[in-house]
Amino acid sequence: MVRIGGICKGAGMIQPWMATMLAFITTDIAIEPNLLKRALRIAVTQSFNRITVDGNMSTNDSVIMLANGLARNSKFEIRNSQFQGALNFVCLELAKMIVRDGEGVSRFVTVNIHGARSAGEAEAAARTIANSALVKTSWCGGDPNWGRILCALGYSKAKVNESRVDVGYAKPGSREILFAFRRGRPTAVDLKTLGKISAAREFDLHVNLHLGPANFTIYASDLTEDYVAFNRRYESDPASLGG
Amino acid sequence: MVRIGGICKGAGMIQPWMATMLAFITTDIAIEPNLLKRALRIAVTQSFNRITVDGNMSTNDSVIMLANGLARNSKFEIRNSQFQGALNFVCLELAKMIVRDGEGVSRFVTVNIHGARSAGEAEAAARTIANSALVKTSWCGGDPNWGRILCALGYSKAKVNESRVDVGYAKPGSREILFAFRRGRPTAVDLKTLGKISAAREFDLHVNLHLGPANFTIYASDLTEDYVAFNRRYESDPASLGG
Repeated sequence: MVRIGGICKGAGMIQPWMATMLAFITTDIAIEPNLLKRALRIAVTQSFNRITVDGNMSTNDSVIMLANGLARNSKFEIRNSQFQGALNFVCLELAKMIVRDGEGVSRFVTVNIHGARSAGEAEAAARTIANSALVKTSWCGGDPNWGRILCALGYSKAKVNESRVDVGYAKPGSREILFAFRRGRPTAVDLKTLGKISAAREFDLHVNLHLGPANFTIYASDLTEDYVAFNRRYESDPASLGG
Repeated sequence: MVRIGGICKGAGMIQPWMATMLAFITTDIAIEPNLLKRALRIAVTQSFNRITVDGNMSTNDSVIMLANGLARNSKFEIRNSQFQGALNFVCLELAKMIVRDGEGVSRFVTVNIHGARSAGEAEAAARTIANSALVKTSWCGGDPNWGRILCALGYSKAKVNESRVDVGYAKPGSREILFAFRRGRPTAVDLKTLGKISAAREFDLHVNLHLGPANFTIYASDLTEDYVAFNRRYESDPASLGG
């Protein structure tokens, strides 16, 4: 048996203006440093590098992993995909916790892009939606505002053909997607049912560009008055200046 | 004599969620369409395309210019730079008014980048600073928070050597720059004097990268609780949905 543990700190702060993502992951696996590094890189790409609270990269974001080898597993065991799968799971759960715990966050939204021409374009579309101030404030209001989603898509670097786009909403992890917009037109969706999904603390957004095979998912938060109130605080204490 | 008039609408709204920048400029100059188009393009590049309230491009941003020729000026007159200069002035003043009138805006900040390697890098640095949620909330608090400026510079696409960077603050249009950070180190600036500049409704931010000859200026606003409150409003009225 091999164990993995993890602990992280996100946008809740220890001292004002020192927000920094720090994650420490420990395991007792016996593994060569290069293999561990590769496994961690894969897990981080799919977790910590796919979250956004306010689109601000910190100077100090760090994920550190330590392995002490006490599991005394064989080389054969670490070559199977179980360890990678477990590490992906730990990193993704920690990363999602950082978003949920973000400054002033009231909603957690999983943004799924489907059908982009390339992975890069799928990522660009997802990040542009997830970092749009207008999209994020609509989430704050519990508003399934597909107009702002389409607007952000339009100025993203992804190729978009507006007559093909679908925009749908679902409960977290559900495959039952309620489409508000399909092939470029508003649907006859029941707005009360739709509003209930987007008023929940967590929901999934699905955007299908219908242009290619590429997908991307990002885990995002809303933008609230509390975020602004927290970050506008300016103590006249000189020690707090510039940090 | 040639006259230029202008009128514009920005992020103050006529109907919720329909914010769109519209500018109409009229003149009685006699000019060929191609020359007018070129003059307008120059003016727009330096004005409407250098403002940001919330980093969200609208689907409908438009600048329309009409010339009726009633000034009966000669070709010679329109070749001098006076007309271009006047048009630049009108566009820039209108563009700045849009920022000052932006949703929930409480501060107007002119972000000047100096000493970048290229015009593209100067622009990237300016836009990254001006669209950073953390920088914008610090402006909301009247906080001369150079740490957040440096952080945004660091993740911008501009080349930055942190040991060369200057960050300074000045009253609008003033050449007296109070440096908070010089050649990579905090200065012994008087924090009360500095705080007075950044607590005013308008101030200039100067960042010198000391890496090259390129400059860029962008006109930006802060991010306030009022911006969020305005844009989170979600009426249950179905007619307002999706807009």
